[in-house]
Amino acid sequence: MIDHLIDKIKETKNPTVVGLDPTVVMIPDYLKKQMFGKYGKTPKAVAEMFLEFNRCIIDEVYDLVPAVKPQIAMYEMYGLEGLRAYMETCEYARSKGLVVIGDIKRGDIGSTAEAYSGHIAGTDIEGEHFDLWKEDYITVNPYLGVDGIEPFLKVLRRDEKGIFVLVRTSNPSSGELQDKRMEGTYLYNQVADLVSKWGEDTIGKHGYSKVGAVVGATHPAQGVELRKRMPHTFFLVPGYGAQGGKGADLKGFFDEDGVGCIVNSSRGIIAAYKKDPEFGDEKTVGAEFAKASRKAVIAMKQDLQNAL
Amino acid sequence: MIDHLIDKIKETKNPTVVGLDPTVVMIPDYLKKQMFGKYGKTPKAVAEMFLEFNRCIIDEVYDLVPAVKPQIAMYEMYGLEGLRAYMETCEYARSKGLVVIGDIKRGDIGSTAEAYSGHIAGTDIEGEHFDLWKEDYITVNPYLGVDGIEPFLKVLRRDEKGIFVLVRTSNPSSGELQDKRMEGTYLYNQVADLVSKWGEDTIGKHGYSKVGAVVGATHPAQGVELRKRMPHTFFLVPGYGAQGGKGADLKGFFDEDGVGCIVNSSRGIIAAYKKDPEFGDEKTVGAEFAKASRKAVIAMKQDLQNAL
Repeated sequence: MIDHLIDKIKETKNPTVVGLDPTVVMIPDYLKKQMFGKYGKTPKAVAEMFLEFNRCIIDEVYDLVPAVKPQIAMYEMYGLEGLRAYMETCEYARSKGLVVIGDIKRGDIGSTAEAYSGHIAGTDIEGEHFDLWKEDYITVNPYLGVDGIEPFLKVLRRDEKGIFVLVRTSNPSSGELQDKRMEGTYLYNQVADLVSKWGEDTIGKHGYSKVGAVVGATHPAQGVELRKRMPHTFFLVPGYGAQGGKGADLKGFFDEDGVGCIVNSSRGIIAAYKKDPEFGDEKTVGAEFAKASRKAVIAMKQDLQNAL
Repeated sequence: MIDHLIDKIKETKNPTVVGLDPTVVMIPDYLKKQMFGKYGKTPKAVAEMFLEFNRCIIDEVYDLVPAVKPQIAMYEMYGLEGLRAYMETCEYARSKGLVVIGDIKRGDIGSTAEAYSGHIAGTDIEGEHFDLWKEDYITVNPYLGVDGIEPFLKVLRRDEKGIFVLVRTSNPSSGELQDKRMEGTYLYNQVADLVSKWGEDTIGKHGYSKVGAVVGATHPAQGVELRKRMPHTFFLVPGYGAQGGKGADLKGFFDEDGVGCIVNSSRGIIAAYKKDPEFGDEKTVGAEFAKASRKAVIAMKQDLQNAL
């Protein structure tokens, strides 16, 4: 999957990932009215509006970007109906040729991590195989150490799938633990070294491993440092746009060939219509709202290309 | 919920939590045949057998223990049907008066953690409130720092709910990061101090906060040390039984009144019939399999009481 992801980035000349993290307040009124009208004020109504919202955006951007990253929490809060919308979003994105990065940040002890590895490995029931979650990549939390990671590595040695392990997250308090000094360096560097090691035996044709790292756009200096420290580790970079990261900050996250990371934007792309005078606001906009997302993707591509 | 949990522990004189973490290999053949016969080799069949398995066990133990802890990964690997069985397990346990600890180990940036807080806070849709997950407590991962925790704290200040934050997990490689020395101490102590601070304003009538800590039974010396370091933090202790922890190791996890922690056992209780000659094996045992779980709970209660 890492080779396929990099091929797609080269083909689209765009390392942008669209974060499909809908909230009810982002949904245009025409779509809210339609779904609340049909299903009442229920989780099913929200699930249906998220799904339709995502489909409209995917239809507008699938030819411009290599991947999408739905954040499962946004769906999980609406229970089973929400999670159905998550799965159907993954499936729809995949049907359009996009790489699907499930932002699930799971992390647990060995036997439990094995159960979570079903997200990318699928699940066998008495010899029948089910690919229930439709994700190509997932994000993983390293706090439990290697035996919480090993079940995922086992999948990666066998299947064309991938993981991104949290190293340096984009949020304001991420340094509270990640920046603690330990053994002559910082916790995030210790995690980085583990991640590099975990990925050693799954390096593909472009020189990158199936075990990637999450490195926030909000820490430009650390991104540069980590790029050097882990030359075979591909980065998933959150924090661009709404969280404050800019293209100009990200040059050092890429390698000298201009690959090496994929940059996520969520609100900045999917809710772009709200800040674009061409499209009005949530009360007046129609199904054309997603064209604002296309414009935002093109602007972000340009911003990243300018940086390189 | 922390006061209610401690009241229940005192009432049952038992700090045992039953870990409801079923796997297909644990299910007695009579139940497998019934559900595969009815639903085919499908996720629905597995979901139905997990649910019936859990109900049988809950019926046998609900009067003996204060709480159950279903591990969501075991259900999540079977997709939406699996998660339905998870929710219905939580609901059934609650209907029997048990405290439900959802072992979900979620952890993310602020806006996403807010979505995950729906597990305990419920979800509002246009003024309608839905309690979709039926959990009283959830487990949380601290790697992202306080802004990934704050949305949960906001719920705890308002509602009778609780969280357990991972401090020192029970698995073999847990020390890979958690035992790293930093700033004159260890990472797990740094996390412990944060957890104590996060809990300061939700301390209940028994002197314990709604913000608890996960501390593995497999680290007895560290458990003693943490008990002293965080006197107002209640512990959820995994790793007893199948993972190697023994009652005798746990004395120091309790306070001088014999409270202060709740000890989980999963396989040792729910798959007890497999190791108990009174019940035969998975091929021959019938619905009485759950009586072995009752015996195992009584033996564990005794083991813990001997330690105190």
